[in-house]
Amino acid sequence: MIHFKACLFSHLEGSNLLSLEVSKEFRTLPKEKLAIAIPASIVSDTPHLREKTFKIGLIGRAAAVFRVNEIIIFMDRPRQKQEKELKLISTILAYMETPQYLRRKLFKLTPELRYAGILPPLRTPHHPLTDKSEDLRIGEIREAMVVSTAEKGVFVDVGVEKPVFIPEARLKIGRRVTVKIIQRNGILKASLTKPEETGEYWGYIVKAYRLGLGQILKKRKFELKIATSRYGKPLREILKQLRRKWRTAKSVLVIFGSPREGLYEIAEQEGLSIDEIVDFVVNTIPKQGTKTVRTEEAIFASLALFNFLLRT
Amino acid sequence: MIHFKACLFSHLEGSNLLSLEVSKEFRTLPKEKLAIAIPASIVSDTPHLREKTFKIGLIGRAAAVFRVNEIIIFMDRPRQKQEKELKLISTILAYMETPQYLRRKLFKLTPELRYAGILPPLRTPHHPLTDKSEDLRIGEIREAMVVSTAEKGVFVDVGVEKPVFIPEARLKIGRRVTVKIIQRNGILKASLTKPEETGEYWGYIVKAYRLGLGQILKKRKFELKIATSRYGKPLREILKQLRRKWRTAKSVLVIFGSPREGLYEIAEQEGLSIDEIVDFVVNTIPKQGTKTVRTEEAIFASLALFNFLLRT
Repeated sequence: MIHFKACLFSHLEGSNLLSLEVSKEFRTLPKEKLAIAIPASIVSDTPHLREKTFKIGLIGRAAAVFRVNEIIIFMDRPRQKQEKELKLISTILAYMETPQYLRRKLFKLTPELRYAGILPPLRTPHHPLTDKSEDLRIGEIREAMVVSTAEKGVFVDVGVEKPVFIPEARLKIGRRVTVKIIQRNGILKASLTKPEETGEYWGYIVKAYRLGLGQILKKRKFELKIATSRYGKPLREILKQLRRKWRTAKSVLVIFGSPREGLYEIAEQEGLSIDEIVDFVVNTIPKQGTKTVRTEEAIFASLALFNFLLRT
Repeated sequence: MIHFKACLFSHLEGSNLLSLEVSKEFRTLPKEKLAIAIPASIVSDTPHLREKTFKIGLIGRAAAVFRVNEIIIFMDRPRQKQEKELKLISTILAYMETPQYLRRKLFKLTPELRYAGILPPLRTPHHPLTDKSEDLRIGEIREAMVVSTAEKGVFVDVGVEKPVFIPEARLKIGRRVTVKIIQRNGILKASLTKPEETGEYWGYIVKAYRLGLGQILKKRKFELKIATSRYGKPLREILKQLRRKWRTAKSVLVIFGSPREGLYEIAEQEGLSIDEIVDFVVNTIPKQGTKTVRTEEAIFASLALFNFLLRT
């Protein structure tokens, strides 16, 4: 039995999770789960929404290129309310992750999405380009949304011109699910499935917390937590240890600082030392030519290194 | 004797080099020279100048973060005139590389620079933030532009409120030079110097060619030429060979494809095989989660890997 969660962008009252359940909270994650954590202020030094959108788009792309399963957004400025930034970043990231044919159905065109048109496509396996029912293959797995209910099942939109019937399913209209095509002739039919079955990278979930990094790390367990910082240990020094840990860890979190403040400063504001709340603080860009490396730049650089050095 | 070249953005008639001598063509380059080559069509899939500008800005940032000394832009669509793209990309990259205090003096505000305001600062050592003469230090090296000539030397703008005198120099007004402060009291004085003397990363030069990649590689000699491609050999397989070659090479060129066409297709259009015109074709992103990796993404990922694996 697979659970599905319905709420789209509802603020869960009394909770610190700014919920973005457009994505798949209850899905089983792949065996090696890779998450990244980014601060809410990543776009605070970019005045216009248009460039903010572009920058968030880069982060979504980086996540997809390097098969990230979850993006966590944390509050890094305890004295400011960062709700607006949390909502902006999480909405755009979740929108990008949604296949094109479901976007308008699952998202209201809120002000955050004003410049969504400039977002680059993810081009992941779960964003298929075919849109004709005759091109569907038996066994093909697609993201879908429930569009109507019947006595003996539900109809879903899988991005072709006709709805697809899922026998025996009971789901609310508007739910996003993953389905496998089981019949092409006559009435189109599909069954519910899990993204893991595809064996392919199937997008990321987004979680925006109304919490600082330290508080999140108390609530969420990761077997390996890596902070990236210019003042961290050189990657070369800790590579062996890191590799040993990564190979056995079922969940890995890689944490990035903001353009203005590194993770040492961000943790300090919570009265914490970053060295104590993560397993490694690492500098992945020896001899950087610039004084600072921006978050989106650090994500591409660090994930490229981890992808090559630790995941293959 | 250091040579300086005056022309700003003049098309050299009869030459295939779309000249961008705002930067320092005749400067001696550092011992290990790192160049990257990018196709003119990198921004062709981005409709608006504003996002084109942002994307080119990312490439300038990547070059600075990873201490790239030269950016070469080549024509990848032989059937199209790509002059406009060549000019756009090279103008923005050269503008970014110029210290803020010299930009308005060295660049006319041409249409290409309409959105230059959104470009991120490079934050390299040659873009100092101090702008008061009292904060200048003896021995400090700064980028400067000749603002007036005198009988016994020239005056340059080094980004402070007063001009600085260079005794015995004979240079035309408008030239960009690198100078070392030699006197702070009374009249400010400096001498001409080379960026190499700083021992720090000192920006990149930009060269836009009205030529295909194959033609450029006939004219320009690099001791090590690396093409990046999804269809290249896995980096792990060739890492040892690559490292051996990189360690002894005095000049390295890393070549990137466009968002629509990889380097195999680009070389084919010139009737060439990419395998034959470079030393290595390498895939730096094993198991990429997306169908394509964009040029600016590939630059960050590949240079991060080469920086870590080959340069330290």
